[in-house]
Parts: sequence; structure tokens; C-alpha cells
Amino acid sequence: MAEKFDAVDVIRTKRDGQKLSRGQIDWVIDAYTRGTVADEQMAALAMAIFLNGMDREEIAQWTQAMIDSGETMSFDSLSRTTSDKHSTGGVGDKITLPLAPLVATFGVAVPQLSGRGLGHTGGTLDKLEAIPGWEANISNERMMEILEDPGCVICAAGSGLAPADKKLYALRDITSTVDCIPLIASSIMSKKIAEGTANLVLDVKVGSGAFMKDIDQARALAQTMVDLGTDAGTNTVALLTDMSTPLGRKVGNALEVEESVEVLAGGGPEDVVELTVALANEMLEAAGVTDADTEAALKDGRAMDTWKKMIRAQGGDPDAELPKAAHTHTVTADADGYLSELDALAVGVASWRLGAGRARKEDAVQFGAGIELHAVRGDKVAAGQPLFTLHSDEEDRFARALESLDGGYTIAAEAPERRESVVLDRITAGN
Amino acid sequence: MAEKFDAVDVIRTKRDGQKLSRGQIDWVIDAYTRGTVADEQMAALAMAIFLNGMDREEIAQWTQAMIDSGETMSFDSLSRTTSDKHSTGGVGDKITLPLAPLVATFGVAVPQLSGRGLGHTGGTLDKLEAIPGWEANISNERMMEILEDPGCVICAAGSGLAPADKKLYALRDITSTVDCIPLIASSIMSKKIAEGTANLVLDVKVGSGAFMKDIDQARALAQTMVDLGTDAGTNTVALLTDMSTPLGRKVGNALEVEESVEVLAGGGPEDVVELTVALANEMLEAAGVTDADTEAALKDGRAMDTWKKMIRAQGGDPDAELPKAAHTHTVTADADGYLSELDALAVGVASWRLGAGRARKEDAVQFGAGIELHAVRGDKVAAGQPLFTLHSDEEDRFARALESLDGGYTIAAEAPERRESVVLDRITAGN
Repeated sequence: MAEKFDAVDVIRTKRDGQKLSRGQIDWVIDAYTRGTVADEQMAALAMAIFLNGMDREEIAQWTQAMIDSGETMSFDSLSRTTSDKHSTGGVGDKITLPLAPLVATFGVAVPQLSGRGLGHTGGTLDKLEAIPGWEANISNERMMEILEDPGCVICAAGSGLAPADKKLYALRDITSTVDCIPLIASSIMSKKIAEGTANLVLDVKVGSGAFMKDIDQARALAQTMVDLGTDAGTNTVALLTDMSTPLGRKVGNALEVEESVEVLAGGGPEDVVELTVALANEMLEAAGVTDADTEAALKDGRAMDTWKKMIRAQGGDPDAELPKAAHTHTVTADADGYLSELDALAVGVASWRLGAGRARKEDAVQFGAGIELHAVRGDKVAAGQPLFTLHSDEEDRFARALESLDGGYTIAAEAPERRESVVLDRITAGN
Repeated sequence: MAEKFDAVDVIRTKRDGQKLSRGQIDWVIDAYTRGTVADEQMAALAMAIFLNGMDREEIAQWTQAMIDSGETMSFDSLSRTTSDKHSTGGVGDKITLPLAPLVATFGVAVPQLSGRGLGHTGGTLDKLEAIPGWEANISNERMMEILEDPGCVICAAGSGLAPADKKLYALRDITSTVDCIPLIASSIMSKKIAEGTANLVLDVKVGSGAFMKDIDQARALAQTMVDLGTDAGTNTVALLTDMSTPLGRKVGNALEVEESVEVLAGGGPEDVVELTVALANEMLEAAGVTDADTEAALKDGRAMDTWKKMIRAQGGDPDAELPKAAHTHTVTADADGYLSELDALAVGVASWRLGAGRARKEDAVQFGAGIELHAVRGDKVAAGQPLFTLHSDEEDRFARALESLDGGYTIAAEAPERRESVVLDRITAGN
């Protein structure tokens, strides 16, 4: 069959700052997925989009075309409504772990199709795989069963969802076309919409440890994604949350599971509890549940019960001891004062270098590797007091991790300004 | 060996509107030639250059890096100096054919390393191959001999010159990154500088049948190329010349050889003679020959003698009959008046559709195909008078050629304004 469009014309349209038509977008995404449009042509188009942008209608069409490139899922057969959360990724961001069971405790199904980590932000599946026996890959049938009882599932996304996005993401990664709002938004939302959740809460991180370094950019990305979800019929809302300093006091895989269990046991760091509760309330409200006392469900063990059932449903032993790294190294304070700065990126990179993350897709992660923070931003510290404990299976990783931490924290005479809340803003659909 | 630079960083630099360093340019061109930088990465970089530009220093470095990707030639061993001409391509542009022998007649060597045509503008080698026996591919040794006597050679450029340009040009062609002044200028000039001519005259065409449709763009391209040549030590000047209407009265391969021979015999169309003489005078002046009477050399047969020697030196028979197309079709005027418009692009595309040009590199051309113009812009015509004769070996090509001609010419009651000169401007090196 003769092609209806020509890649050279489509590229030229965007290169010259014009709007891509629905037909051009549908054709170019489909032809790229089929291999008729070459990688070099899509790379040129991605750069033209990076520099000349896309409007709301183009982004919606681009997203829909990526959804149409593969399978879609449906949770319509479930007896309960679904609410999903997506985070743009941060350091110490283990929120999915306590959040999914907490929301499910109130009768809303939580299908968390997750990924593995690449670079300095961890992946949810890597964290859960630290639990002995737990299995990320389950069949769709099993997923639907678990979504009925206990009501939440965290598992690997099937490879059939939005294959165009998978191909395009790999291309953007090597062509400096990653940090472009229309392409980020359509990448995230194509997968989330294809998954078929009824309600979606986005956690858009802002700060050094996040993809978006400043709040205006983060707000623009959040608005674009909320509008995209809304236009596609998914009830979508976003919170902008602080990622200038790590979330909680533990960064790594098993370490973050440990801290999540602390939260599910009614304890845990204040910021992790605050964000878990805020996101749970959004997910429940979106699903029409407005009277849930989520804080109580963390305190009284109900969320913990759901967590244990969820872990067992995928073969994990929630009571088993978690892997520990073979070696530790503790950094102490060299002066009295306040920990006035603790940079999320510095901690994230240090944890990654300790073995908690991977540099290439095919690398394995160390479950025990990571960093415990004995002090967090704003804490008073005394000279000689332990600040951080580094964990790794390989002692020779400490030096490069310490290089990253160095300069990533400051001890000052004055206490820094207190952060009011980890939640910075809330974004709902625009017109 | 570890790579010193990273393609992602180089792309990001230009994407963000910053200047590429000498090291980045040298590395990326070399790595692309070696295959370390992938086509999709170069495509993204080319689009970033298209949209964010390069300054004079970057363009010079980019050109030098393309020259360094392959072999260079030298004419230093010749007993005479060299002067070369490059045209950006037009319709009916057979100027190289009378020009090379005309200049050589005055003792300046003319090494015309030429190409084949693609699209609606013809290729010099395609035209000469219409001459029975003539051979485009000759050894370097033979080329040097011919440059001593008769002093001019038109032959295929060796594949070893600027291989990076060859690879990049093919990529730009499919990624809508062709019409970008820094990339056009560096592509043309890398080959011309690598060829090693001492003096170079550029014929930058302006108008519908040319690559550059308006004079400001053409002037910018000419200035960029003249500056590039000058910075690289090649004595370079450019003429901007009109390509809104075809050059001369014959368009095609054998047809253009015929018209060139008319010019060498002291006749031929006024515009072809004017441009041949103007370019010859520039090439001679650049080489230090200021007293040449080039018009006389066309009239008295000296240029024709050199032409015949040049054709014979490459196996051709200058007196042999030229190929003729099997079929002709004549278009007549449907009204009395003046031919007020005759569009170069319409004529070029019609000639191409008749079989004079090729759509893909591997296609063959028809030597006899093309168009004879019985009237040119400004001529008075009478109803029923022949306007154009179309030539093709395949009768079924006439319909589509006529479609292109239709609307490409106008017969009006008033005579159009007379063109003063085919030469619109002259560009010398800037500061």
C-alpha cells in the first residue's frame, strides 16, 4: 500500500513551526512503530518538536497515537473502581509501597504497573524485589484476582502497552530530546491511559533530585499531563511535591522497604507519612471516597494487613528478613550546628554509586545498597555525631559515593527555614 | 580508546543554542564518519543546527572537519594555476561546458570535478555522457595530464573526497535538514576545498528553478561560502545569477550539449553567452589574468578548439551526431501577445519528467530527452506559433510533463519588463 504521508514533509511541517495535523501524527507514530519511518527521521522530528513545541491538541493526538500503537487494558470487569498514582521519580521515593495498600484498605482498587530504575532515581520493582520470594511478573488474570482481593497490585507493566513510546524513549535518550514537556507528558500519559485506570493522581517532583528542577517547569508539565488525562476521559489531578532533599531517612532498595514498613506500622518519617496520606486522600477522593480516615488506617494496622496480603499474593514473605549489604561506612559531622542543606541529587547519585541503581538496563542492582540518613535537613547536629551510613556489597564503591555526598550537605550555625509541607501545589484540569 | 566527547552532550550544546567548540565539531564529524555517532544522533544535531544556526567560526571548523574526513587533492605540481567554478544548480545550466575550455584557452587550468543530476536540475556529467565515447571516470594521473594540455577537464569527483559530507548529505535528504545555509555552505565548500583549486568562482542561482528562491537567502549563502573559501586559503568570489526562467533555449542532456556547441561556435543564446563570459572573466581575474578577451575567443574558434581537445582527451567524439529522442510533441501559443512568464521550475520539472533527470540515484537518464524553447521570456508570439518542443523516448511521458508546463508560462498583451542582466550581484569576502 502506498504511504499516505511522507516523513520528510511531516518533519518539515514541525521544523517550520507549523502545527502537525491529526493525520500526520497518526501516520508518523504508526509508521515509526512499523519501521517505515527510520530512527534518524524520528530523531529529527523529536528535535524539531523539542525546539518548536506542540500545542494541547497535538500533544493529545500524539499521546492517542502512541496508545493506539499497542494493546490497552480495561478494569471495567472489576467490582470496584480503580485509582492509580504516577510519580515522576525522586530520591527516597518509596511512597507507592505504603500508598497502594492504604488506598486499597478503603475499597478502591490500585493497579500500580511499575518499572525498574535507571540512573539516580530508584525503581519501585527493584525495591519490592528485595523482599524474598516476591515476583514482579504476573499474568493479567492473576492481576485481576489480586485487584479484587486484597485490592492492590504492584507489578511489571506488560510490554504490549504503547510500544511506540518504548521505541521513542530509547531514541530520545541518545539524541538529547528527553527533557521536553510535550514528549515527557505524552510518554507518561500514553502508558497510564493505555493501562485503563479510571482515576489518576500524578506526583510531579520539583527540585535537584527530580527531573524538573524548577517549579514553573514542573507546573507546566503537571498541567499538560492533567489536561491530557482529562481529555482522554481519565479523572486526573496532580500534586507538585518537593524533591530538593531526599524523602524520608532511607534511600536504597531493602532500606526503602524497611522505611515503608515503619510507615505501615504507624511510625516512619514525618514527610513520608505526610505525602502518603496526601496522595491517598487524592486517590480516594478522585474515586468518590471522601470520608476515609487514612491516617487512622496507618496507625491501627489496617493498611499493614493489606500490605502483607499484597506481598503474599505475589509470592513474597512480608515477615522475612531483608537483604543487608556486606559493608557499611559512616560519615560523622565535623562541626556543631544545623544540617542546613542536604541535596537530593547528591544523595541519589551516592546511593546509585553504592550499587542501589543501575547504569544500563541490563545491570543488576544490590538490594542492600543505599544510604541511611541519621540527620535530615533542619536537624541540629553535634561534631562527631553520625550523619550518614553508606551500605554496599563492595567496599571500593564508598570512595566515589563519598565524592558525590561531599558538597551535597552543609552544616551551618543557623537553622534553615522550615519547610511548611512537602506538597507545594495542586493542579487540576484547565480549560 | 575512550571517546573524548559524548554525542548526547554535543547535541545538547547546539540544542540549547550554544556554540560548538572546535573539539566537539572535530570529534562529532570524525565519529560520525567512523560510525560511532549514530545516524539518529547526527539527524538530531542537524535539526538543532538547522533551527539554532552556526556562526562563521563553527561553519569553518565544520567544513574543515569534513575535509579532514577524507583525502585531499593538490594541483601544486601543475605548471599553471587553477581556477574552478561551482554552480548551485539551475534549469538549462550548461555553462560549465563552454566555460571550462574558454578559460583554459587563456592558460589557466580548470579542474571541474562534477556530479550527476538528481531531481529537476541536470548534472554536468549526464550532459557530457550524451557525447558518444566520452568517459567521466578517469584516473588522477590522466586528469593531471589533461590539465596540462588542453588545460581543462570535466570528470567525476573521486569518492575519497569528504566522505563525511557524502554520508551527511544522504541523511539530510531524508530528515528535512537540507535547506540550511551553514550545512549547504559546508557541504559545497568541503568538496571544493578538498579538491585543492587555487581560485574558485561560485555561481549562486536565485529564483524558482534554484535552490535559493529569494535574493537575500542567496546572498547570505554566497557570503557564507566566499568567507569559508577565503578563510581556508582559496581565493573565492561569487556571482548571484537569475534562475527565475531557464538559461538559454535548450534543456536536457544532448540538447544542452548542442547549445553549448553553438556558444563555442560564436553563436548561442544571449543569456548563456553573457553568463559564460562573466564567469570566465571572474575565473581568469582570480587567477591573475586580467587582459583576456573572452568574447573574442568564443567568436574566433579558439575556445572550440580547446573544447574538441578536451572531449577527445576523455574518449569522446566531438563531431559525432548526438542522441535524439524517439518522440517529440510541440506546444503552440493559443493567443497573440508576449511570453510574459516562463517559470524555470515548471520547465525543469517537465524536462525531468520527460526522462532527462532521475528520481533515484540508481536511475538512468535519457540522453535525448528534454525541452526546446522556441520562445523565451519577453518574446512576442502569435497564436498557433510553436512555443516548446518536448523530447522523450517514451510517448506516455508527455502528459505529466505538460501538466508541469501548464501554468508555468503566461501569454500577456503587454511585454514584460526586460531583464538587465543575468548577473544580479557579485559577492567578495567579508571581514
